[in-house]
Parts: sequence; structure tokens; C-alpha cells
Amino acid sequence: MNLGVKTTLFNFKIMRQKFPEFEDVQIAYNRIEPYVKKTPVLTSSSVNEILGCSVYFKCENFQKVGAFKFRGASNAVLSLSEKELKKGVATHSSGNHAAALALAAKNAGVPSYIVMPENAPEIKKKAVAGYGAEIIFCEPTLEARELNLKDVIDKTGATFVHPYDNFYVIAGQGTAVMDLIEEIGNPDVMMCPVGGGGLLSGTSIATKMLAPNCRIIAGEPDEANDAWKSFTTGEFHPSVNPKTIADGLLTSLGELTFPIIQKNVDEIITVSEALIIQAMRLIWERMKIIIEPSSAVPVAAILKDPNKFAGKRVGLIISGGNVDLEKLPF
Amino acid sequence: MNLGVKTTLFNFKIMRQKFPEFEDVQIAYNRIEPYVKKTPVLTSSSVNEILGCSVYFKCENFQKVGAFKFRGASNAVLSLSEKELKKGVATHSSGNHAAALALAAKNAGVPSYIVMPENAPEIKKKAVAGYGAEIIFCEPTLEARELNLKDVIDKTGATFVHPYDNFYVIAGQGTAVMDLIEEIGNPDVMMCPVGGGGLLSGTSIATKMLAPNCRIIAGEPDEANDAWKSFTTGEFHPSVNPKTIADGLLTSLGELTFPIIQKNVDEIITVSEALIIQAMRLIWERMKIIIEPSSAVPVAAILKDPNKFAGKRVGLIISGGNVDLEKLPF
Repeated sequence: MNLGVKTTLFNFKIMRQKFPEFEDVQIAYNRIEPYVKKTPVLTSSSVNEILGCSVYFKCENFQKVGAFKFRGASNAVLSLSEKELKKGVATHSSGNHAAALALAAKNAGVPSYIVMPENAPEIKKKAVAGYGAEIIFCEPTLEARELNLKDVIDKTGATFVHPYDNFYVIAGQGTAVMDLIEEIGNPDVMMCPVGGGGLLSGTSIATKMLAPNCRIIAGEPDEANDAWKSFTTGEFHPSVNPKTIADGLLTSLGELTFPIIQKNVDEIITVSEALIIQAMRLIWERMKIIIEPSSAVPVAAILKDPNKFAGKRVGLIISGGNVDLEKLPF
Repeated sequence: MNLGVKTTLFNFKIMRQKFPEFEDVQIAYNRIEPYVKKTPVLTSSSVNEILGCSVYFKCENFQKVGAFKFRGASNAVLSLSEKELKKGVATHSSGNHAAALALAAKNAGVPSYIVMPENAPEIKKKAVAGYGAEIIFCEPTLEARELNLKDVIDKTGATFVHPYDNFYVIAGQGTAVMDLIEEIGNPDVMMCPVGGGGLLSGTSIATKMLAPNCRIIAGEPDEANDAWKSFTTGEFHPSVNPKTIADGLLTSLGELTFPIIQKNVDEIITVSEALIIQAMRLIWERMKIIIEPSSAVPVAAILKDPNKFAGKRVGLIISGGNVDLEKLPF
């Protein structure tokens, strides 16, 4: 997060308040509506029987680029001034945010610059290139990624869009739960996974306003439990050498997401790798939908601690469906 | 189809007409509505771009037991007289119809007897047993299956429910397309796979009435092209040693389904195994839904002959999502 200062300065420049509020999620909702897909909410009686509660799955694996990330990236791009827009946007990522930002920029007709490690999977390189992004390959180290990003921003004047620690990205991610609550009414519990905390932050802001009595519970892998550590101790813990199949949840909380999560979230439940794979398989087999391991983490949290959810109505955001079909864990 | 005569006699006994008509599909719709799941219709802009047409996928892979078969089985069970109901239902199958009939019987509170080859996959045995069916294991030959079925029917008085060549089963399968057309309006083309022809028969009966100008096109594997042969020559051809990954499409047309298909269907397109796998992977990767190989067959038909569908609105019934995750073709 060497570039965190830049992001924060940028945020201060544009707006008076530092943290997004429900109003910002509402603005994001209207702003991105023409571009995002209204994803379905699915249920399964056999999954409910196994989990002991009624779960409403908001299927952001069906979202454009296969992940909720398209919401936040679209909101960030569409929030830029005309002058900024022309110069395009940039980020470093080899994951869903890269594809999301590339497509959001394409939709707006502006350039995008994505710094990717040269050893990123071919399929991800192709997807990002397919959305018309300019890819800058670099050594697979964080230092190289940040240096290359700084370089491309200096050259092009593009605006850096952080994958999660960005006001507009957080507000955009909060729009998924607005759809969900509108469709199912107020649930007893709202769940999503936590990595950098963009989805959890946005979800918690919207849920607190729309369903104030709803408990907000996140799932996190045992093997990448930095958010749980930060949340329970009240002190920031970075993610150090995380080794989990849930490859969307490797990052640390940010300067915006950590305080939002501390304020709004009721609990973070951490789960083992075995339970993540079991939960992923359960959803694939019973619901016939493809979810990535990160999306299975909140389901694993219910499997781990079913008493906490017994008989309850649970909203759960399926974060994405991008998996390599040749490297399945089962 | 040694038992075909019995089925036909049974049909004649209950009703005046031999072939189901649209009215029978409507009756089925109302009869099974409390039991079946209203499955979503999904679309994908990237799939549309690749296929060159607008496809509306009716996701019966999300149906109970993971396949459209639950519609026909439910209608067959619920159409029995009280006296017949008490004695239960029977069939021989190791596929989706077995699970569908077992669950339909369970919902009606009556026994079901399923004759299965002893070498059927463990997961299928478990699923059927889980719905409370009594499983009768037999040698893995058609002769043994039919003998065992006759035996259990003689002993129990259960009613045989043929997987597809049954008036009520056909009427039940036609209900999926009623939902689809209600949701999307009249498409230019309606598609589904053809094996024994139950789904195609029901679909064609309902489509002809609701969208009379819609072309009805089925997909069939090259390696199990008996329906195509029968359809194009006008003479019944049985399925002989079919060897296709589309394991739901191995059977021959029946005494009811063949004439219905001859009357209503515009075209059967046959496709290679490689194209079936390519189509299956396309749907998995782009739509993030799990479909079985049989469901990929109509998609493969569009890939094979895209000019026929260019720019058209296509309704397509995804027949099921039951695949062995440990034996994927990619």
C-alpha cells in the first residue's frame, strides 16, 4: 500500500467526507445501474436443509466479468471528472479487479492500464486484454508492481483505482446488497467474505441502513486471518504470507475499510481450507452454480458454527465465479 | 421398450386421447406448480456475442433433483387415482428420472421402487435412496432391468412410470417452456436436446400453441443420432450402441414421442463430441452455471450452424446439471 497516501489525498480532494455513507451507495446504485447486470437471488431447499437455515444467495458470480468487482470499478470510473476520464484509469492486479476496471473503462470509452505480474495465468491476461486494456507486465513482486504502476501513472496521468481502499469502489460494492434486501426483505444475518474489505465495507454500510437489526458476519480463511486479527484486537494486522485456496482474500484491510468494518461488522468467522473446499463443493453439487473458493468462505462459516444461524434468514453475497476448471480442488 | 405395450394400455385406460395436447400441459402446470421450483431464465452478453444470437436459457439444472425430469415425474404421480397412488410407482433407471420419480413419490407420501444396475455410480444410488425409494439392484443389462421391474410391479401393484414415453410425463415436461415463454415473450427459435424425446415432445406441444411462428430445433449427438435418423427418414430407428458423453441422450424415441416430434419439430441438428464439450465449457466458463453434457448439445448445435440462428431470439432449455465433478471432460 505504498500508494495509499496518494489514494487518500485523491479522496480528500474530491469530497468533504472521508468515509462513504449510505447516500454514496445510493448514488453509486443509480450511476452504475445501466452497466451492471441485475443478478438473480437463488435458493436451494437441500442446501437450506444441510445448513439449518434459509440462505438467499445473491449471485454476483453471474455479474459482468464474473465478480462483484465490476460494481466498484464502474462506480470509480463513472465518478471521475471529464478531464480525468480522458486520461484513463490504472491499477495493479491479476485478479477480478483488473478485468472489472478494464471493462468499466471500455464502457466509458477511456483507456485503462493494468500492471500484471508476467507469471499471471494466461486466461486472466487474455480476459483483461479482451476488454481493451493496456497490460504492463512486471516481475511478480509487490515492489515491481507498485513501481510499474507509479511509472504508468506518471507517464499517462491516469487515475489509480485501488481494488478496495477507495471511496467509490466501496460505495459501488455496497450496491449488491441493496438489490438483495429489496428482493428478499430484511434478513436476520448478512454475510460475505472479507479480503481487503471492499465488499464487506460497502455491504455493511448499506445493510446497517436498510436492515438495522440484521447481524453482519464475514467469513475469512484461517490461513489469511489478518482481518479477523485486526477486527478482534482493534489494531491493524497486515496479511503476511497468506496461503489459502481463496485467492480473492489474500490482501490486507485498508485505511478506509478497516474503520468501516470495525464500526459496522458484528463478527468475523475464520474457517479451515478443508471446510472451504467442502462448502465450495456443496454449492457446486447442490445449486449447480460455479463459485470461486473465496465465495465458499461464508458458507464454510455456517458449516463451522451452524447453531449461530439455526432457523435464521441469511443473505449471502456470492462474490465471484472465476475458477480455473483445470485446477479444481476436487 | 418391452414394457411399451403396458404403458400404452395404461394410457388408453385412463384417457380417451392417446397423445397429450396443450390442454394437458396446462393441467400439468397447475397440478405440479406447488412442487416444482420456478427456475430462472438467464442470459449472458458474452455468450450471445460468441453465438451471434440472443439466447434465453431456462435453467432446469436448478430444478429439484437437478433436472427437468422432476416435472414429468411429478405430473405422472399426481395423475394417479387414490387407489393406484397407495401402491406406489416404479421404474428402471439409473439417471435423472430415477431421482425425479423417487422425490415425486416422496412428496405424495407413497412408495417408489427403482430398479438400478448394481454398477450404477454410488452418488446416484445415494441420491435415490435419500429420497426414500426402495432400490432393486440388478445385473447391468436391459433384460435384467425389465425382468426385475416386471417382478416388482407384479409383487407390489405399483404403476410403471416410463421415463419419457408416458402421456403424463410428456405433458409435465412441456411445462418448462410455458414459464419460459411467459417470461421472455415469443422467441424466433425454441431449442432443447433430444434423447427419448419426452422433453422435446412436451416442449413442442406447448411452443406450437403459445408461439406458433417459432421454429422448434433439437440438438442430438452424432454418436447417438437415432432420433435424427427416425425424424429424417420417417421410419423408427432405435438407438444402437450409442457412445456419447451426453449420457441423458442414449435412449430411443418412443411410441408417443416419435409421432409428436414428427408432427411438431422443424429440425434436428446433430453435433460432434468435441463440439458438445466445447459448448459445455463455454457455458460453465461464461455463465458460471453447471450443466450436464446433454444440456450442452443444443448450444453445440448453434456453434455448428450459427447462420441459422444469426440475430434471432432463441429460447433454450437447459435440461440438467448432474455431473460427476471428478470426471470432467476438461
